[in-house]
Amino acid sequence: MPEKFLPFTYDKLQEIVKQFQTPFHIYSEKGLLETAESLKNAFSWNSGFKEFFPVKATPNPFILKLLNRIGFGADCSSMSELILAERTGITGEEIMFTSNDTTSTEYIKAKELGAVINLDDISHIPFLEEHAGIPDLICLRYNPGSISHDDKIIGNPKESKFGFREDQLFEGYAKCRELGVKRFGIHAMVASNELDQEFIINTARILFEVVVEISGKTGIRFEFINLGGGIGIPYKPEDISVNIQEIGDGIKEQYENIIIENGHPPLKIFMESGRFITGPNGCIVSKVLHIKRTYKNYAGLDSSMADLMRPGLYGAYHHITVPGKENINSKIKYDVTGSLCENSDKFAIDRYLPELEKNDLLIIHDTGAHGHSMGYNYNGKLRSSELLLRTNGEVMMIRRPETVEDYFATLNFDELDKFG
Amino acid sequence: MPEKFLPFTYDKLQEIVKQFQTPFHIYSEKGLLETAESLKNAFSWNSGFKEFFPVKATPNPFILKLLNRIGFGADCSSMSELILAERTGITGEEIMFTSNDTTSTEYIKAKELGAVINLDDISHIPFLEEHAGIPDLICLRYNPGSISHDDKIIGNPKESKFGFREDQLFEGYAKCRELGVKRFGIHAMVASNELDQEFIINTARILFEVVVEISGKTGIRFEFINLGGGIGIPYKPEDISVNIQEIGDGIKEQYENIIIENGHPPLKIFMESGRFITGPNGCIVSKVLHIKRTYKNYAGLDSSMADLMRPGLYGAYHHITVPGKENINSKIKYDVTGSLCENSDKFAIDRYLPELEKNDLLIIHDTGAHGHSMGYNYNGKLRSSELLLRTNGEVMMIRRPETVEDYFATLNFDELDKFG
Repeated sequence: MPEKFLPFTYDKLQEIVKQFQTPFHIYSEKGLLETAESLKNAFSWNSGFKEFFPVKATPNPFILKLLNRIGFGADCSSMSELILAERTGITGEEIMFTSNDTTSTEYIKAKELGAVINLDDISHIPFLEEHAGIPDLICLRYNPGSISHDDKIIGNPKESKFGFREDQLFEGYAKCRELGVKRFGIHAMVASNELDQEFIINTARILFEVVVEISGKTGIRFEFINLGGGIGIPYKPEDISVNIQEIGDGIKEQYENIIIENGHPPLKIFMESGRFITGPNGCIVSKVLHIKRTYKNYAGLDSSMADLMRPGLYGAYHHITVPGKENINSKIKYDVTGSLCENSDKFAIDRYLPELEKNDLLIIHDTGAHGHSMGYNYNGKLRSSELLLRTNGEVMMIRRPETVEDYFATLNFDELDKFG
Repeated sequence: MPEKFLPFTYDKLQEIVKQFQTPFHIYSEKGLLETAESLKNAFSWNSGFKEFFPVKATPNPFILKLLNRIGFGADCSSMSELILAERTGITGEEIMFTSNDTTSTEYIKAKELGAVINLDDISHIPFLEEHAGIPDLICLRYNPGSISHDDKIIGNPKESKFGFREDQLFEGYAKCRELGVKRFGIHAMVASNELDQEFIINTARILFEVVVEISGKTGIRFEFINLGGGIGIPYKPEDISVNIQEIGDGIKEQYENIIIENGHPPLKIFMESGRFITGPNGCIVSKVLHIKRTYKNYAGLDSSMADLMRPGLYGAYHHITVPGKENINSKIKYDVTGSLCENSDKFAIDRYLPELEKNDLLIIHDTGAHGHSMGYNYNGKLRSSELLLRTNGEVMMIRRPETVEDYFATLNFDELDKFG
């Protein structure tokens, strides 16, 4: 069983905890850059390859800036994310705007920024034309419908709200060309947290085939193909990590067999691999507040669902380790809980861990993606800080913890006093 | 099938929508007060009866103030909620502090405010003593363990992280008395969204029996019994609302048979009925942004999971109506979606509605409790405003909508510019 990645020694952790109050999210710059480079290397055969990091996974501008410096763009899905990218210095075709159920103001902003606009539905073509105007470059999102896959989060594509049916793609590209679009892309995302390399390669194959088919029938030449995200990470110790180089090689083979073989001009490969890049390179550091013994053993942390919704929301597994107790047998069964008045606020149920005491530090692993970003303020809980462990060993706070005043920001207490 | 309560006419709605941008949460003062009065009336036989409204259900100080004026206290579960109650003018024994996995600072604050402190675990007795000191009045939270009930949200009490085992209660009360506690209460909450009146009455009976048992064995006399919340509301049109008067009467009968019969001095009955009070008296007003037809029909709203998590989180049903289309047959099947890049962002799946068009207003019913309060900022989505429809017909904004600047509040962009 491979040991979970921990970016710091026990002594370093003690030092960090002295400087910054628990709980906090911490990301490893070294880990982020290494993972990002591995993705780039796996697709180095494709000269136009570009990762558009999905802002929703880790909407921290320091992380976005780090990734942008090594050539990654930003995949934005909302007005806030567009503005965040802009403030980080990411603009123009460095932004992929992949939204659905989009407002006119979001399209106007995306167009102003010069973002690559990825349309979710055929009805958005006239909507975009009316509100923002049609750009030179357009991408359409494909929902292949017929791929059946028992992925629990994304579900059957036919039950998915995202994208165009195949017949709508033909109509959509024709319509866009009529409206003056000169450059074309195609996008699909049918997996989520997928560890099966063949499934990911297969998705690329299906998209390549669609590109060739549409290109053959309409004469449209595609500039890029956006494979979306979906590459999984090994949350459980027994999960086996994908080999990203093998995925890159497998997609290359399909690319040669389909795109090159059919005489389509070179296509840039785009990806949106949020979880793969930040997921394993961030963790939560939390302290045991209380040990409780009733019908079960509980370890109550100073963190909660406000910091991590995935276990409560999906029953998702996050590995937990206890720095300093690596050599003690994990023989006591705990529910590891947060402090919300919701019984679902548990980081782990029936988890075997070393015997725990108050003030033990626990590491909740693989929270770098869809961790802080999915936090809420239910029960008035405040979201924690985010720290970055730099490659030089320094730790910087890249997001301060929320305060009660933040929580009250949308309330007017002066009016309350007059309220009667 | 009973019509869902709507606090405004179609014309009034048009007027509100002209004044306030959709989407918004809107609460009916008249509905809130009527429901609150019905609860008070049902327990008027108990001279000490008090509802402690659970702040987490609807953490808006205007709502809290309205309810406080008719005698309701606040059930707080965190530091933010304690401070919110304080700023609303609710202090002292008007506050029930029912928390779990509590921090020392929260206990200190609760003690300073003079709140009734409800302890979740036996280990919290020395913890409270160490950090805040032991108050005169203490409440212990009971987890009866053996009540089996297939409630999906709270689960089997033996799997619940909340409360003391019965044997721990004896030890706990004895310990508290030793430490100088003079006044005692007991709390239990084993239901959630329960429409079975007998189950609620039965829970009260079990608690009354425990009171008599503990009192008999230890000589402790209880001052109050807090039955918690758990009274459900009819989310689905075919659900049948509880008759709160019958619940009050049923609990009275148990009270007489057990408490009076066994010679225990009069007990005050406390409740924490969040969902029952605010749930049906609030709704979301949202506008159709897009109609999409792919493998299914989609109505995309200008709202999202940021405003209401319950359908995506629990698969919960919320009734949806289309003002102005009441007389059109509901014969078209829609998925009613929000704009998050999550396929779970659907307010309804396969819901039959009148044929919808862009700009139709939709009412998502019964969102007054656990609606706005559970919203998050995933995908950079901003939480909507809260409005209050006053009894005089005026509409006031009791929480402004979030802005992008709120969303960025914990980020330091000056540091970002220097970051390299």
